[in-house]
Amino acid sequence: MAEDRSEPETRVRYRRAKSVTRAEEIQMAEKRARSSQPDKPCHRPRDSLFSWTSDFNNFTGFINWGFLLLGIGGFRLLLENFIKYGIRVDPRQWFLFLSGSNNGGTECPSIVLILYSTVPVILCLLIEKGLAVEIIAHGPGMVFHVVNLMAMVLMPMVVIHVKESGFSLVGAMYVCMLYAMLFLKLWSYVQVNMWCRTSRRRNVNPQGRMRRQSLSYNNLQATKAKQNAKLPKDNGDETNGSTELVQYPDNLNLADVYYYILAPTLCYELNFPRTQRIRKRFLIKRILEVVVGCQVVMSLFQQWMIPSVKNSLIPFSNMDVAKASERLLKLAIPNHLMWLCFFYLSFHSYLNLMGELLHFADRNFYGDWWNSNNIDTFWRSWNLPVHRWAVRHLYIPVVEMGYSKTVASITVFFISAFFHEYLVSVPLKTFKIWAFMGMMGQIPLSALSRIVEVRCGARWGNIIVWASLIIGQPLCIMMYYHDYVVTHFGEALINDYSVV
Amino acid sequence: MAEDRSEPETRVRYRRAKSVTRAEEIQMAEKRARSSQPDKPCHRPRDSLFSWTSDFNNFTGFINWGFLLLGIGGFRLLLENFIKYGIRVDPRQWFLFLSGSNNGGTECPSIVLILYSTVPVILCLLIEKGLAVEIIAHGPGMVFHVVNLMAMVLMPMVVIHVKESGFSLVGAMYVCMLYAMLFLKLWSYVQVNMWCRTSRRRNVNPQGRMRRQSLSYNNLQATKAKQNAKLPKDNGDETNGSTELVQYPDNLNLADVYYYILAPTLCYELNFPRTQRIRKRFLIKRILEVVVGCQVVMSLFQQWMIPSVKNSLIPFSNMDVAKASERLLKLAIPNHLMWLCFFYLSFHSYLNLMGELLHFADRNFYGDWWNSNNIDTFWRSWNLPVHRWAVRHLYIPVVEMGYSKTVASITVFFISAFFHEYLVSVPLKTFKIWAFMGMMGQIPLSALSRIVEVRCGARWGNIIVWASLIIGQPLCIMMYYHDYVVTHFGEALINDYSVV
Repeated sequence: MAEDRSEPETRVRYRRAKSVTRAEEIQMAEKRARSSQPDKPCHRPRDSLFSWTSDFNNFTGFINWGFLLLGIGGFRLLLENFIKYGIRVDPRQWFLFLSGSNNGGTECPSIVLILYSTVPVILCLLIEKGLAVEIIAHGPGMVFHVVNLMAMVLMPMVVIHVKESGFSLVGAMYVCMLYAMLFLKLWSYVQVNMWCRTSRRRNVNPQGRMRRQSLSYNNLQATKAKQNAKLPKDNGDETNGSTELVQYPDNLNLADVYYYILAPTLCYELNFPRTQRIRKRFLIKRILEVVVGCQVVMSLFQQWMIPSVKNSLIPFSNMDVAKASERLLKLAIPNHLMWLCFFYLSFHSYLNLMGELLHFADRNFYGDWWNSNNIDTFWRSWNLPVHRWAVRHLYIPVVEMGYSKTVASITVFFISAFFHEYLVSVPLKTFKIWAFMGMMGQIPLSALSRIVEVRCGARWGNIIVWASLIIGQPLCIMMYYHDYVVTHFGEALINDYSVV
Repeated sequence: MAEDRSEPETRVRYRRAKSVTRAEEIQMAEKRARSSQPDKPCHRPRDSLFSWTSDFNNFTGFINWGFLLLGIGGFRLLLENFIKYGIRVDPRQWFLFLSGSNNGGTECPSIVLILYSTVPVILCLLIEKGLAVEIIAHGPGMVFHVVNLMAMVLMPMVVIHVKESGFSLVGAMYVCMLYAMLFLKLWSYVQVNMWCRTSRRRNVNPQGRMRRQSLSYNNLQATKAKQNAKLPKDNGDETNGSTELVQYPDNLNLADVYYYILAPTLCYELNFPRTQRIRKRFLIKRILEVVVGCQVVMSLFQQWMIPSVKNSLIPFSNMDVAKASERLLKLAIPNHLMWLCFFYLSFHSYLNLMGELLHFADRNFYGDWWNSNNIDTFWRSWNLPVHRWAVRHLYIPVVEMGYSKTVASITVFFISAFFHEYLVSVPLKTFKIWAFMGMMGQIPLSALSRIVEVRCGARWGNIIVWASLIIGQPLCIMMYYHDYVVTHFGEALINDYSVV
């Protein structure tokens, strides 16, 4: 709706005239004269609301309009989808997917891998124990840790490669996710324990142990057993008995490690902030969200994503720009909805659920990335556990090692790019660099979004962020899916629809 | 995104503790103790942003998200349309449409009818002249007027009926629109002149003419010729020479009538408020909007509406609810976009253009209907010329005749329903009552929207208004198109795609 800033307006002119007494008088007289006419005048000088000169700017109704149109469009797409494909939602399939078995196999490689993950965790704890009591020296200890962590990261790659077609894509994907998270968690665990050892060596006291700071601290630490004797029975009281902070190496036990492995954070700490009680209504809501939300994501995936991805394959392969763009945009909507649901489910519902169950008090899992005006702010705020890990365990240590901040940023960026590639390439068994390239693409995109933010205002910066999110993901998905089909089924089989 | 109002929160609890000095001390000590730990603690008790307890409510980014998604969806639909139908925009066709000729005929019935419209206008002026100089008495004069206006309204009906297939749908439609507008304008003209005569008869002065009120009034009335002698040459000056208001029966001349016919209003006045100059940049912008906007509307119509309407015909005819709904929603989007463009073009661009050219100062052609929270407010504000006409020339006169306000409202409603029906049934030559029913449907809808407004808040009232606008129109269009095809081409020809 075009608006005119430069035009003088009738009303303004009339207003200006008011300062002149004579003009005002004339105007009043004119008004009186007109209203006394027998033709019942009903017109007076006014501007249209869309004219710049009208000073009108209440267009809030159009926000409702936008969301209504979005809702109608979404509902129509849903209807079109059901007419075209019928109901494709099949909850049974998901149990097969999650167990990792494929092609009717009775093995559950995902579950086996999850169970196996205890091995590197326990190994890690044992190495730390050894380091604490100085059976193992610092140098070899670190080598053991690196070997242990590397072996852990490689394990799903090897299993997925060996199992070949006996491993479902979804099952493989979440196992990789789990192993990547475990890697970050154990990295943090090892580093924090190293800090503690360094600190202990520095201010060792006559008894050969660090002095203990005794103070009031209401925690329900994993080392409960030890402390419970000191805690009054009624731990609902705010100012109840003084509890001690756990000190190194008292933290090196299985309960503490497993509390940390299950806790919704990637940064190890000896004394996590704790809540005093489990809010039952909060817990029930989160459980319902996880249960219902998972069904929604799965349904979206089966009903909308799979047909869209399959339909895009041929235009994408033929490099038909118009059709491929149309398919890409059609894919963008269910993909984006799924991503939003997935975000809410994992970062709000699931992590809060775990936090509530474990009395873990820090629930700052995500910032307000939806308002971010440039790509950098988005990356810094959408995934706070990973961001906090990257700052605490990669960026600051690299800077403390004497490197510049740029080197530290680049290191963080490359490790991040590696894990993105790991999470996609390993399950798909196609070692293409699309995810890596996607990450690299963030650099010029970040520069672009900053320029847009400065030149066109924060709103447009925010729009660039959203656009990169909505369009970038399906583009990567299409590239991977295309290469996956080409690699595993050959060019001739591009029509084969039995691939998930 | 679910939020939890009822749960006590960790932070609140911590804050509450502050009032207790000992608790505060403990907390501070605890904080100090934690931060002095060698494990570099990075967690503290916080709530997630989506949690009700976080007090966070800045979701403005999602407004950009909504509009971006809308833009992407729209662009995809456009692309899909071009892939499916190719380019169907044909500007030549429009000149044929507008001339009213159809099926390759060389006649231009629309243009003939437009030229003919001068006849009832001049007849009306002559009757008024006769009434003014009292050649014609009041009673017969009114009868002449009614006959003249009735004949005028019937004229397009007769011509369209006689011409049968020689008249294009679009040509017929805008001729009907023009004649309906002319009817309202002449009704107002006759009534205002009648008011003036009544007033003259009441306070007739010794000279047999009304006393003239001489006052400063800067107007450039259609009776320019007469007044120019009295006006100073520089009419850009605010307080320039005193001009007289035109008095009855000096207004009864061709220039005044034609100024009124062209002016962007349906309410006649002897002395319209005037602007002093034509703002050239404003004028150029409006001209560009009209030219470009018409092309956009026409392209939307040819490229998007016609295929959508045709594709909906069969599911609609077969009463296939799922498919018909899908088609209806698919039709709703281009139809709504066209309506929005049409609204902006006619009510902002075109009427402002005419106003600027004619120095007509009252540009209040539409209210902020987009913010209206119930159907009534919408109907009162979307078309102010018609609304003002209905209040001034129908509602108030009916009330002054002694009827109740309800009777007056119902009268306005029925006249409005009649004209809606006229504008649709005559060009389509199918005298079905869908438009009339659509109007009647506004009564329960209005009640519903009021209930929603009161119960669920203004936002939901506004959403109901938008929904009725977005969904109601294509529903009526489909009903008419279906009946049009069935009536004119028979059930068997429902597949025939040569019908526009």
